[in-house]
Amino acid sequence: MPIPERKQSKERRQHLLRCSLQLFIDKGYFNTTIRDIIAASGVGTGTFYNYFVDKEDVLKALLEEFAEQIIAGISQYYMEEEDLYERFVETKRITMEIFARNQELSELYSRVAGASEPIDQCLKAFEDKLIGFYSRNIEYGIQQGRFRNVPVTPVAHSILATEKFLLYKWVVLKDISREEMVAMVVSFHQTLAWGLLADQ
Amino acid sequence: MPIPERKQSKERRQHLLRCSLQLFIDKGYFNTTIRDIIAASGVGTGTFYNYFVDKEDVLKALLEEFAEQIIAGISQYYMEEEDLYERFVETKRITMEIFARNQELSELYSRVAGASEPIDQCLKAFEDKLIGFYSRNIEYGIQQGRFRNVPVTPVAHSILATEKFLLYKWVVLKDISREEMVAMVVSFHQTLAWGLLADQ
Repeated sequence: MPIPERKQSKERRQHLLRCSLQLFIDKGYFNTTIRDIIAASGVGTGTFYNYFVDKEDVLKALLEEFAEQIIAGISQYYMEEEDLYERFVETKRITMEIFARNQELSELYSRVAGASEPIDQCLKAFEDKLIGFYSRNIEYGIQQGRFRNVPVTPVAHSILATEKFLLYKWVVLKDISREEMVAMVVSFHQTLAWGLLADQ
Repeated sequence: MPIPERKQSKERRQHLLRCSLQLFIDKGYFNTTIRDIIAASGVGTGTFYNYFVDKEDVLKALLEEFAEQIIAGISQYYMEEEDLYERFVETKRITMEIFARNQELSELYSRVAGASEPIDQCLKAFEDKLIGFYSRNIEYGIQQGRFRNVPVTPVAHSILATEKFLLYKWVVLKDISREEMVAMVVSFHQTLAWGLLADQ
């Protein structure tokens, strides 16, 4: 059982997360053991288990932090831009740039899906967090009368799906460049926004 | 080296593909060996290699056939429906129903992404085929003046991305029902179509 988060050292937790991510990238998630993480981070075995239950718990924490970083990036932009069309489109650029800056985490996210039930549940928590956030933003646009009253959940899913697929094309397939990835995500959302706007 | 396709027996090829798919589902793709496929299908070792180079070649053939089945299903509908809006939306229902009827192949497709370079290339061939087909259909709508002149490639990617993501939510996560999957894909395309139509 991990000790309560308020009693954990933030720096030590971050250190464990960074070492784990590096190992997941270097050796692959599946080939990395908790023993490896303990050795690489230089902490005692007991210390690791003060912070995390198992390897999936580390993955979950990494992705949770990642989702919070994306939401914080978008929320920051909301303070600078009021227009809902601009917000809808430009926040997708910001999101993809956060994905691109965190290339290692993005690659991990893109590679581990479908491998096992506990991993899928980690990804689901990450994705549900983003889909929920995207949904609330579209609902706000509808309440403000700027967007048409469309079913929100399918659209929120398509946003994440498009981001995820183009991320995979960049970071795993290396089929498109970082710039192409961002440009394609933005372009799609311009077309989609046209379908959302009430005053076309 | 496989023998030329015109010299292959269609039935034997199909038999090898069906046996392989069943093994991929029962044992998992990664745990299935060519030896397993040969044993399950009851052919000689030499016979297998008359048809396929390796395991990835079997996966590639399964996905190729799957893409052709989807494209044929859509093309069939085109002969029944002329309106481009109806076509755009309803063909997504048809696509998802083909995915749903081929649950085993859909699960294989949803699970193996990101696992290795040769597998990713098999998936890419499958996805590129569908994206190319979707692109040509949108381009046709633009030429006909029914759709606005939007950049087509990002939209075609978003279509496949949304289908793929909601398929994964159904077949891997079991987070939504088959009916919810189809309904969400259709609903999203209704909103997106509004962004495509020239006469809004």
